[in-house]
Amino acid sequence: MTGVFITFEGPEGAGKSTQLARLVQRLTADGVAHTVTREPGGTELGTRVRDVLLDPQLTIDPLPEFLLYSASRAQLVANVIRPALGRGEVVVCDRYADSSLAYQGAGRGLEAALLDTITRAATGGLTPDLTVLLDLDPVVGLERAARRGQPDRLEQADLIFHRRVRQGFLELAHRTPGRFLVLDATQDQETIHAAIWAAVHARLATTA
Amino acid sequence: MTGVFITFEGPEGAGKSTQLARLVQRLTADGVAHTVTREPGGTELGTRVRDVLLDPQLTIDPLPEFLLYSASRAQLVANVIRPALGRGEVVVCDRYADSSLAYQGAGRGLEAALLDTITRAATGGLTPDLTVLLDLDPVVGLERAARRGQPDRLEQADLIFHRRVRQGFLELAHRTPGRFLVLDATQDQETIHAAIWAAVHARLATTA
Repeated sequence: MTGVFITFEGPEGAGKSTQLARLVQRLTADGVAHTVTREPGGTELGTRVRDVLLDPQLTIDPLPEFLLYSASRAQLVANVIRPALGRGEVVVCDRYADSSLAYQGAGRGLEAALLDTITRAATGGLTPDLTVLLDLDPVVGLERAARRGQPDRLEQADLIFHRRVRQGFLELAHRTPGRFLVLDATQDQETIHAAIWAAVHARLATTA
Repeated sequence: MTGVFITFEGPEGAGKSTQLARLVQRLTADGVAHTVTREPGGTELGTRVRDVLLDPQLTIDPLPEFLLYSASRAQLVANVIRPALGRGEVVVCDRYADSSLAYQGAGRGLEAALLDTITRAATGGLTPDLTVLLDLDPVVGLERAARRGQPDRLEQADLIFHRRVRQGFLELAHRTPGRFLVLDATQDQETIHAAIWAAVHARLATTA
């Protein structure tokens, strides 16, 4: 596979969607073939699983929650991400395995070894070339998210949970520094975009 | 936990639903407190997951399929089966982990060690006290199922697959003979019911 696999991670309200859209705009302008997708979702199965996961009416325990994310992920890797990388494209994915490790692992307390085993099976060991982590204090993130209307089931969870999630993301970044670009999400959009583009550009130069 | 956990396994068309209903009727007549449930399903989450799994329009690879079944199972064990067993009830479940091991393991070829790890996590190690396996030659089973109308995604799969599934069930029974009651599903309903009731009655006598 010769493509470049880029994921965006971070809490709700950190500006992931905005920055992802700006990166995609830039790739388009530069004529770089790319595929944009997201988790959960990205396939017909993933879209159905997403509807279940984000339904605030449903009771979903941490382990079934993780298994549902993993089901969506396995289908996405097989049907979308690997084929696109095989065509040499840049794949930009809004959330990936790091989100499960941070939310269901660090946040909900599921055992890391179990999550690693299932994640390795679901992804066939496919790891991003670059993970952009938009880091944000949970208090700021929740305020931003609240401004966008009715919070979903993830946003409703409490602040202590979100602090554990943030710590989980930062520990993942600490363990694999070569893969992560950690950015302070309170910086202005231009600064953040420039940093992301520099990192992506460096990866593209390496594989070209 | 003082209840008795009974599962029904076997291919489509083996008469699982009929025999399960007869057992439940008998438990009711004898005044035995019981809970009846099924997989996938049995909870709000499970019902949503069931709709996804049985939708013949969806492409679902073997691993995501297994993960979805496991998600439904984890929620069912936590919310329904363990609480009912804790109340000392008989729990009768239409399909359980053996189905995943037979269909996605033996049938689809997923690695047994991975399925065991995930199943142990999803069930917290909860194993049935009695598993009724209605064994049937796949040719006969498919003919019976076809008579009931439009086949679902499991029934549409080919005969070789169903032969592997049957072998998978029989091997599970061979490995844990104390748990399994294997019955020839071509016998008449009365004979099968009598054998099931005898086995259930023996379990009830042990725990009473």
